[in-house]
Amino acid sequence: MSDTKRVKLTISYDGTRYHGFQIQNNAITVQGEFESSMSKLFGEEISITGCSRTDAGVHAQNFVLHADIPAFFPTNKIHLALNTFLPDDICVLHGEDVDESFHARYSCVEKTYRYMILNRVVRDPFYRTRAWHFPYHLDIEKMNLAASDIIGEHDFSSFMAQGSPVSSTVRDVRACSVERDGDVVSVYITANGFLYNMVRIVTGTLAAAGTGKLTESVRDILLSCDRTRAGITAPPQGLYLYEVKY
Amino acid sequence: MSDTKRVKLTISYDGTRYHGFQIQNNAITVQGEFESSMSKLFGEEISITGCSRTDAGVHAQNFVLHADIPAFFPTNKIHLALNTFLPDDICVLHGEDVDESFHARYSCVEKTYRYMILNRVVRDPFYRTRAWHFPYHLDIEKMNLAASDIIGEHDFSSFMAQGSPVSSTVRDVRACSVERDGDVVSVYITANGFLYNMVRIVTGTLAAAGTGKLTESVRDILLSCDRTRAGITAPPQGLYLYEVKY
Repeated sequence: MSDTKRVKLTISYDGTRYHGFQIQNNAITVQGEFESSMSKLFGEEISITGCSRTDAGVHAQNFVLHADIPAFFPTNKIHLALNTFLPDDICVLHGEDVDESFHARYSCVEKTYRYMILNRVVRDPFYRTRAWHFPYHLDIEKMNLAASDIIGEHDFSSFMAQGSPVSSTVRDVRACSVERDGDVVSVYITANGFLYNMVRIVTGTLAAAGTGKLTESVRDILLSCDRTRAGITAPPQGLYLYEVKY
Repeated sequence: MSDTKRVKLTISYDGTRYHGFQIQNNAITVQGEFESSMSKLFGEEISITGCSRTDAGVHAQNFVLHADIPAFFPTNKIHLALNTFLPDDICVLHGEDVDESFHARYSCVEKTYRYMILNRVVRDPFYRTRAWHFPYHLDIEKMNLAASDIIGEHDFSSFMAQGSPVSSTVRDVRACSVERDGDVVSVYITANGFLYNMVRIVTGTLAAAGTGKLTESVRDILLSCDRTRAGITAPPQGLYLYEVKY
């Protein structure tokens, strides 16, 4: 392989068609499509490393990955070049040169997810792959009150899909808030890291709080370390990786 | 057939998957899917009449149709009942009883279309089937100046796809304006009726005005009755039937 340099790429994708980010055999993935486009552009196999795995149907507005590409290639043109090879549901927004020590996953200090809920009685064709259709009225004030209990360093076992192997279930949530814009309710969560399905279970729990159906406080649910006391796992299509900080 | 009553239904659809509204042999259409769902709900064949034909890939936020349905059926529940049978890219928003003289197409006095343009250099996966990706900067003031020439009763031959059979090419445009919301530029046009591809040709022409590439005024283009002097036909995926008045 020729002389290389490391680049950090910020990409956006509509996850509807994909079995998640990470490459798999016999399944279409964002990484698989991306690496195939890289090899078409550069004429050699180039692997990429993403900032996280996303599940099937989950989207990304600003997903970060790194790759080592031929040193001669102008990084400020890479988004234009790659976008001509990528399918139209994946797009490079921005590319920049980074130090060889930069790692999309390990150098990350904070991520923000957005979860989008369509909160009206009738469904909407334009949101079918973009949001969770939730027909019962959500009280944003009640949701924000519950969200404030999520903030801080806690053991989030109650908000993790059962059977996920992980060394520690403690995470530091730096921000958690809920906003309404017409029929669209958005949950934003920022943390140093997330457990498997954590955002979707937090959202399911906040939705229960928003309808007054949550029978105990989020604080008590956290302390119990019991997944069965939190709310349902909200469906994947409402989830967006929103921002990644280094 | 049992005793019937006429209902007016307001529906919304994502046109991406469809070869337009109107039923055709060997092609999937909104009308075809809708009539098939009606027959599942009512156990008999019921035909519908739409307010207009929309082209392949064109969307509708508030499309109106009428149908004669069994008189016993509660109209205030029809959206819930039909939505369980309809595919998730078509949705009934609202149903109401109307007089037998109501006709979705002939009773219509005014329609508004919205045309959505994604105006930024890099494309966006979430808008790929929802907007026209236009990478050159659009000057909204210039577009609105050109749009003001569109307003009024004119012969719109210059803004009609060639070879369309029509008895008169005069239409009365009541409003035409352009708005920007971040990277999204929207063109709104209200008229008593539209010629074939009229909104898409107006949009193509306004986009040329917005980049300073239009070499003559919209007034002169109108007077020429010459299609070749107007702008390009903007692609279908940015077009939405936005409102229909009776």
